Amino acid sequence: MIVVACNTASSVALEMLENELPVPVLGVVKPGAMSALKATRNGIIGIIGTSATVASGSYQRELVRINPNIKSVSAACPLFVSLAEEGWVSGPVVKMVAEKYLDEFQKSGIDTLILGCTHYPLLRAVINEILGDKVVLVDSAEAAVRGVFELLERENGFKRDGKKPHHKFYVSDSPDRFRKVGERFLSEPIDEVLKVALEDVSSF
Amino acid sequence: MIVVACNTASSVALEMLENELPVPVLGVVKPGAMSALKATRNGIIGIIGTSATVASGSYQRELVRINPNIKSVSAACPLFVSLAEEGWVSGPVVKMVAEKYLDEFQKSGIDTLILGCTHYPLLRAVINEILGDKVVLVDSAEAAVRGVFELLERENGFKRDGKKPHHKFYVSDSPDRFRKVGERFLSEPIDEVLKVALEDVSSF
Repeated sequence: MIVVACNTASSVALEMLENELPVPVLGVVKPGAMSALKATRNGIIGIIGTSATVASGSYQRELVRINPNIKSVSAACPLFVSLAEEGWVSGPVVKMVAEKYLDEFQKSGIDTLILGCTHYPLLRAVINEILGDKVVLVDSAEAAVRGVFELLERENGFKRDGKKPHHKFYVSDSPDRFRKVGERFLSEPIDEVLKVALEDVSSF
Repeated sequence: MIVVACNTASSVALEMLENELPVPVLGVVKPGAMSALKATRNGIIGIIGTSATVASGSYQRELVRINPNIKSVSAACPLFVSLAEEGWVSGPVVKMVAEKYLDEFQKSGIDTLILGCTHYPLLRAVINEILGDKVVLVDSAEAAVRGVFELLERENGFKRDGKKPHHKFYVSDSPDRFRKVGERFLSEPIDEVLKVALEDVSSF
């Protein structure tokens, strides 16, 4: 199984990956959209993501496919990624940036906001502070994890031998950077990070 | 001729490109370092750039290679890239981010700062406001352009037929995004942007 755990990649490349690869491929857009549809009461859903995710219209399409009456409002928030990677997730800088990006949502009447980028849940506290408790924040990753869990359960894919799992990370960008940022995301040490060149990936 | 007009690529890939390619390859690190050495009076030079540029030590090495007595202080300012791409180059957000990044330079005694990333000259005004007029800001791109100009002059590479030049841009990332951000950088319209897949680049 391959989980495309990136909203941008899920938005622009999922269909191609599903067609090309001989294993199940799961993205994060469908589970995130499903979660948001369960959460909304007034049918107005906000979407934030990278420029590519928002421009692709992936979430908008998925929401309307399932429920044609849904209204959605979206905004690209590219600085959120850099802020999360810098670890600037609280304080005046992130507050000011978030206020600027989220301004239009405050008048839009949304009651649910999809955090449509892996990095944004790190900024959940400040987003919640600005939009208030009446707006439910949906983390696409959580929804996707539930989907993966269900699929593994169904197909008996879980190893339950009681041993602590061992994680290996293969990355195409800087391993040091991945380790540093990844430990911030996972809140646990990352040991084994191996660099792979994209040209060699076909040999996996 | 190929100009590697990116500080990060110049920092990590220039030597390989010089070895592999059959045409002259010019980076921006050497010209930028030379400019800074001409500008400094007290021999303490600051360097700002992406995380990869700063971590590579490319500028530090080049400065010391030419003048072993130079001292340098460096800081990665990754958010500057997103700010420049968003067009947030003045106002309270960029001011606050710049103050945070440049704080250590204010005590370091630098009299020259290398803007070691293509995007940073767009933030020149706010950087100047924080560091004051006594710190000379060196734009690596300007220095590199002078180098390209001299090489073309020397090798009679200039076409002087009086016609307006026509520019073609080949990009591996989103053409729309390139056009939008590029027009902000160049202050003129960008017409022809063609997308190329990296796999096909060998056919150029």
